[in-house]
Amino acid sequence: MKKYLAELVGTFVLTFLGCGAAVSLNCGVDSASVVGTALAFGLTVVAMAYTIGGISGCHINPAITLGVLCSGRMSVKDAVGYWVGQFIGGILAAAVLYAITTATSGSILGTTTGANACADGVPLGAGFLVEAVLTTLFVLVVLGATAKTNGATNNFAGLAIGLSLTLIHLVGIHYTGTSVNPARSLGPALFQGGAALSQLWIFIVAPLVGGALAAAIWKAIEPKAGKA
Amino acid sequence: MKKYLAELVGTFVLTFLGCGAAVSLNCGVDSASVVGTALAFGLTVVAMAYTIGGISGCHINPAITLGVLCSGRMSVKDAVGYWVGQFIGGILAAAVLYAITTATSGSILGTTTGANACADGVPLGAGFLVEAVLTTLFVLVVLGATAKTNGATNNFAGLAIGLSLTLIHLVGIHYTGTSVNPARSLGPALFQGGAALSQLWIFIVAPLVGGALAAAIWKAIEPKAGKA
Amino acid sequence: MKKYLAELVGTFVLTFLGCGAAVSLNCGVDSASVVGTALAFGLTVVAMAYTIGGISGCHINPAITLGVLCSGRMSVKDAVGYWVGQFIGGILAAAVLYAITTATSGSILGTTTGANACADGVPLGAGFLVEAVLTTLFVLVVLGATAKTNGATNNFAGLAIGLSLTLIHLVGIHYTGTSVNPARSLGPALFQGGAALSQLWIFIVAPLVGGALAAAIWKAIEPKAGKA
Amino acid sequence: MKKYLAELVGTFVLTFLGCGAAVSLNCGVDSASVVGTALAFGLTVVAMAYTIGGISGCHINPAITLGVLCSGRMSVKDAVGYWVGQFIGGILAAAVLYAITTATSGSILGTTTGANACADGVPLGAGFLVEAVLTTLFVLVVLGATAKTNGATNNFAGLAIGLSLTLIHLVGIHYTGTSVNPARSLGPALFQGGAALSQLWIFIVAPLVGGALAAAIWKAIEPKAGKA
Repeated sequence: MKKYLAELVGTFVLTFLGCGAAVSLNCGVDSASVVGTALAFGLTVVAMAYTIGGISGCHINPAITLGVLCSGRMSVKDAVGYWVGQFIGGILAAAVLYAITTATSGSILGTTTGANACADGVPLGAGFLVEAVLTTLFVLVVLGATAKTNGATNNFAGLAIGLSLTLIHLVGIHYTGTSVNPARSLGPALFQGGAALSQLWIFIVAPLVGGALAAAIWKAIEPKAGKA
Repeated sequence: MKKYLAELVGTFVLTFLGCGAAVSLNCGVDSASVVGTALAFGLTVVAMAYTIGGISGCHINPAITLGVLCSGRMSVKDAVGYWVGQFIGGILAAAVLYAITTATSGSILGTTTGANACADGVPLGAGFLVEAVLTTLFVLVVLGATAKTNGATNNFAGLAIGLSLTLIHLVGIHYTGTSVNPARSLGPALFQGGAALSQLWIFIVAPLVGGALAAAIWKAIEPKAGKA
Repeated sequence: MKKYLAELVGTFVLTFLGCGAAVSLNCGVDSASVVGTALAFGLTVVAMAYTIGGISGCHINPAITLGVLCSGRMSVKDAVGYWVGQFIGGILAAAVLYAITTATSGSILGTTTGANACADGVPLGAGFLVEAVLTTLFVLVVLGATAKTNGATNNFAGLAIGLSLTLIHLVGIHYTGTSVNPARSLGPALFQGGAALSQLWIFIVAPLVGGALAAAIWKAIEPKAGKA
Repeated sequence: MKKYLAELVGTFVLTFLGCGAAVSLNCGVDSASVVGTALAFGLTVVAMAYTIGGISGCHINPAITLGVLCSGRMSVKDAVGYWVGQFIGGILAAAVLYAITTATSGSILGTTTGANACADGVPLGAGFLVEAVLTTLFVLVVLGATAKTNGATNNFAGLAIGLSLTLIHLVGIHYTGTSVNPARSLGPALFQGGAALSQLWIFIVAPLVGGALAAAIWKAIEPKAGKA
């Protein structure tokens, strides 16, 4: 049970601090706000990887859990436990963030919870494609950097994976705000409503498609066959 | 005594270079100044972790020392010695920074010492909440990344903890300037006065609450019971 | 064959996410967009180094493969296989990126594929010089950081090399967009045409000259003679 | 002799790419240009630490060499050899950079070589103080992170020291452009002339004072007496 609790805490941290930075920096208003938000999301993973990595492996993302499950590295029972913890963590984070943003006001502070939605000029299909491709590449890094068959040691995995999430956000923020993580999208959408809620299916389905696709690609390039 | 001296030097470096960057970049004027200041504070911890980590463990923050104390990893006597060193280091840093900023002038250089205060539109209660939550999450990373029961090696802890402080600043700067560290707030407040001094209690009490809370959360998710 | 496939996947990731960030951030419009794009290119290498490093060594750049070949660390047959994989990966990445950018529109999203070309005021000769020098220094880092004769461990090489590519981009973006990688330039040039296509020879020849030059410099400063 | 040659190459890289980024980003014009330039200087050290660290220890800075000499970790003969290599490397870098900047023109590209000088509103005495204090703290990190008596492993030193240089630049750029390295200042000043040349003594003397001071501070806090 401790590992499910760790996933809850870790997903809380990812959602609260990642979306918190997006809100605080008014993400999207200029290039620097995008860089800052991208750094924040990536560093939540770096922080949590070295904090709860020894407990749960630090997925804190349902799409990663699906990719790990498809790679035969965890049981269905554990995957369900991880998913429950992750979605609860994301909802709790959105609640605390909502409490803070509604209690504050100012010219520079946003009043949202950093929910995902397709930007103006980005059709739903394009948003889905962006999320699916970005999640595929992100989960591919997760699977490769933590594979026992790979030369890399797990100690570097937290850093490599976290910085990859920064990279993914640098590309995707202007399209969809970048989700690649259903638990990070659900909580904020519940509090924010509107387009965030009506488009929520994109940020749940596309990342899961990407997570499964990454498992297939990794299987194709993994040095030796068999479970890693 | 060398370890108390090391904490003094380390807290000097954190306060002088962190607040120095905030002053030099006129932190808050745009997103890039926030990113630069957040990087600076985090990198002071990275720098000091690998410089004095072998001497004192590099707390350089009274809230971390409280969290470590509550986790049963150090004695009360050492904690008091660390606190004395930390507060002296922070005051000395503010003095040197004050000397530099009063000796210089220019359109781009600030003339303050980077003290903390709630931003316009941020009520004191919201500022307290932000500081308490951010410190809780920051000290949680410290306790997790340095726990012997965790899979991570201590060599990565300095990097993970430092980058977490960058993350914390990306979220908090627009609310309170981000303290999460009473020693970093006391020195600059003494020289800057005004709101920085009248609100100082927030930046001493809230981080200490967060440090204690982090110890309780870590105890709940730590893999095995007992001292780590 | 798995290593050639890994090079294809890795070069796809470098080109798709690196050029994708350049397009998304409208690279060059301000300093922050340059910083974000430079970070993105560097982090593609960090991500891939820990993902496919154990499979192919993660060259994902024909100039690096040439430098490694000139240093006597790989066979001509493997070099050709790497090159084929790299150029295919870059072309596929440009195709997917082109599909996304043509499907989206908006005030902030660029509509190009991030191809390289000399900026206004940068003569072709100066552009060639910049690309040749930057590639020389970049491949020098690659050869040094992965040399068995060097004190550094290979585990850090991925991080050091990736961050070096960020560094190289911070310098070169305002001159040529920074290629230092023929496979990263070919794909986008095919879709973008114009100056990107007519100047393509610069971004193929200059990096290869730099890669060979780096091998010569490394041979001069390497601690002990002989193959590393 | 190979180690002196390595110092020449390393200082060339630091000066060419660090000052090259400062010129290309028109450093100082906005906060993002400062962040980008600070990143560039720090990453030159990260890059070179893992490239020539096993050859010369990667000082690439006369102030570091002085600090290491004062700490009794190297001979006077080697120190002189390092210094000669470093100053030659810095001058060659400025020459190549000058060739590029004079061959290019454009609204965004600077035409200088990134030389150091006190900013408007910064008296020479304040500039000297800033350089001396920043160099002291920087060389303190170098001495601590590479000390055998410290718990940190040398593998992390390159990363910690490089990121510290980024930190130092975030603080100092708006005051002096940040030197903390006489070899990085000499070359560009020779080509740029004017204030850069008349104030050159500050950027040679102050860093050397800081380097010696750092050795004294480290001796005071080092865990065990004796040579490390």
